[in-house]
Amino acid sequence: MTKTILLKNRPKGTPTIADFEFVTEETNLTIANGELLLETLYVSVDPYLRGRMSEAKSYVPPFELNKPIHSGVIAKVTASKNEQFKEGDYVSGMLDWKTQQVSTGEGLLKVDPSKAPLSAYLGILGMTGLTAYLGLTQIGKPVAGETLVVSGAAGAVGSVVGQIGKILGLRVIGIAGTDEKVEMLTSKFGFDAGINYNTTENMVAAIQQAAPDGVDIYYDNVGGTISDAVLFNINKFARMVICGAISAYNNTELPKGLSVQPFLVKKSALMQGFIVSNYAEKFPETMKQLSGWLAEDKLTYTETVVEGFDNIPTAFIDLFEGKNTGKMIVKI
Amino acid sequence: MTKTILLKNRPKGTPTIADFEFVTEETNLTIANGELLLETLYVSVDPYLRGRMSEAKSYVPPFELNKPIHSGVIAKVTASKNEQFKEGDYVSGMLDWKTQQVSTGEGLLKVDPSKAPLSAYLGILGMTGLTAYLGLTQIGKPVAGETLVVSGAAGAVGSVVGQIGKILGLRVIGIAGTDEKVEMLTSKFGFDAGINYNTTENMVAAIQQAAPDGVDIYYDNVGGTISDAVLFNINKFARMVICGAISAYNNTELPKGLSVQPFLVKKSALMQGFIVSNYAEKFPETMKQLSGWLAEDKLTYTETVVEGFDNIPTAFIDLFEGKNTGKMIVKI
Repeated sequence: MTKTILLKNRPKGTPTIADFEFVTEETNLTIANGELLLETLYVSVDPYLRGRMSEAKSYVPPFELNKPIHSGVIAKVTASKNEQFKEGDYVSGMLDWKTQQVSTGEGLLKVDPSKAPLSAYLGILGMTGLTAYLGLTQIGKPVAGETLVVSGAAGAVGSVVGQIGKILGLRVIGIAGTDEKVEMLTSKFGFDAGINYNTTENMVAAIQQAAPDGVDIYYDNVGGTISDAVLFNINKFARMVICGAISAYNNTELPKGLSVQPFLVKKSALMQGFIVSNYAEKFPETMKQLSGWLAEDKLTYTETVVEGFDNIPTAFIDLFEGKNTGKMIVKI
Repeated sequence: MTKTILLKNRPKGTPTIADFEFVTEETNLTIANGELLLETLYVSVDPYLRGRMSEAKSYVPPFELNKPIHSGVIAKVTASKNEQFKEGDYVSGMLDWKTQQVSTGEGLLKVDPSKAPLSAYLGILGMTGLTAYLGLTQIGKPVAGETLVVSGAAGAVGSVVGQIGKILGLRVIGIAGTDEKVEMLTSKFGFDAGINYNTTENMVAAIQQAAPDGVDIYYDNVGGTISDAVLFNINKFARMVICGAISAYNNTELPKGLSVQPFLVKKSALMQGFIVSNYAEKFPETMKQLSGWLAEDKLTYTETVVEGFDNIPTAFIDLFEGKNTGKMIVKI
């Protein structure tokens, strides 16, 4: 028996459970030469998937209607006719939202559960960690002593960005949406300061207070009014890494806000969109760096683990209400 | 007798003639050792001066109230006790809006009227040319075959940006505000296409038609809705040089518009504020390059020359209505 989750409707605004279709089929999956059979163990749900549910072209093509959704998955090889993988191996890859599936092995990476928990390969040792490190270093170009502000700071990427910022000698300020998250930024992740945007009346002043020397690097996961408030505090030659704009993903109209251009001119500042896949040639060295820091306990991470295949869509939807702390993962 | 123009009020919105004060004094200027006496010949009026008339700090400090305004000036040395300059020399520099003045010679450059008309040293061989070349090359990073869009294309900087774009092998599209200007873009400056934003209903479609392969580089002098329309046409890895935002200079409130962040993420695009003074170490080589192209007739330029010292403020105010074609200069 195989369970599958299909995209039923392209969501209008915030996705709802009705946008997904659950299918259960009696299956007797067989594999041909070169193929392997995979059992899904962990599924990653990420804000960027919202973009793929819309029809508009983005940096990845849209999901097709009535086809399985796919995302980062950790799976166990339960049968193999592919000499690169053997039964009992664990792999990560972009796979369908199915409890089991056949694969050619293309695009799959073996992962080692003795070196880190399997779910970490979806997070800090996966796209999350790569996105945090490469966005911060390649666009942010940090110099020890500078000030970094991170939005969505308690999220999967943000919490890693801030920790790497500290390793690299930056003053790090995180912005998050609950007191619990803000508390965790300093107590668990070592940020210098945190700001709760939901309870702070004057964000411009709060950022100024937390960053008295101004903001040199802004790692932006959210966009919207939080980012506007950061603009008033940027230093000359500031670098703004635009990694995501979760505040806008469910908008049915294009978001509007403060024009950034006058700020950019005034401060000779840079703003650049970041997509991790543009930096694929740097993945191996980055993975090595992140694994090293993790082994040395210089990096830590949190996961919000939801249990049960049927809860994948709910876990995804909860991302947009900030119900996760750190990486949101579904354990099958 | 010396005439001087002072800043009387910080303009609210668009500057008016009442924001300036004209003073005429009987003077008998004498020079000490190391000083020289200068007679003003040409005065440059530029949109960026509007920023300095406001109280807010920008990349240059604000002008002081009841003090002379200053900008780029070409002057003749009428007396000298400075061994670096002799009577009859011509110089360019940032000087007061005065018919004559004493200088220590600091920051002055000798200019040669046998190589180019004196006024060119305020334009194509001055800040204008440096701004055009360095913004396009340092941030735009052009590659032959790419597509460049220039806003404020018939202005002093824009018309030079487009010509340099053609020299570097780009497809060049200019945006300007009258049919006469648009006609001049193709007939005089060699642009591939021009768009009149005042008569074009759907700017997004017009840019798409003129740039069928999408926009790789946007050299932005204006900001506002024109820039919004460009965003819909950018290619992956587009570079947007934010040189100015004349559409916003006279706003009394901060301008708002389409949020650029979602576009930047979608296209891995870059947007960077450009200020020519950050690239001072490249001025000598750039001047050499521009002089060479000018001598080879690869570059041309237009000036709008207003006559009379008393007309400096009017010429400045006219910039914001686009009354100039090319560099706006006041001949004394």
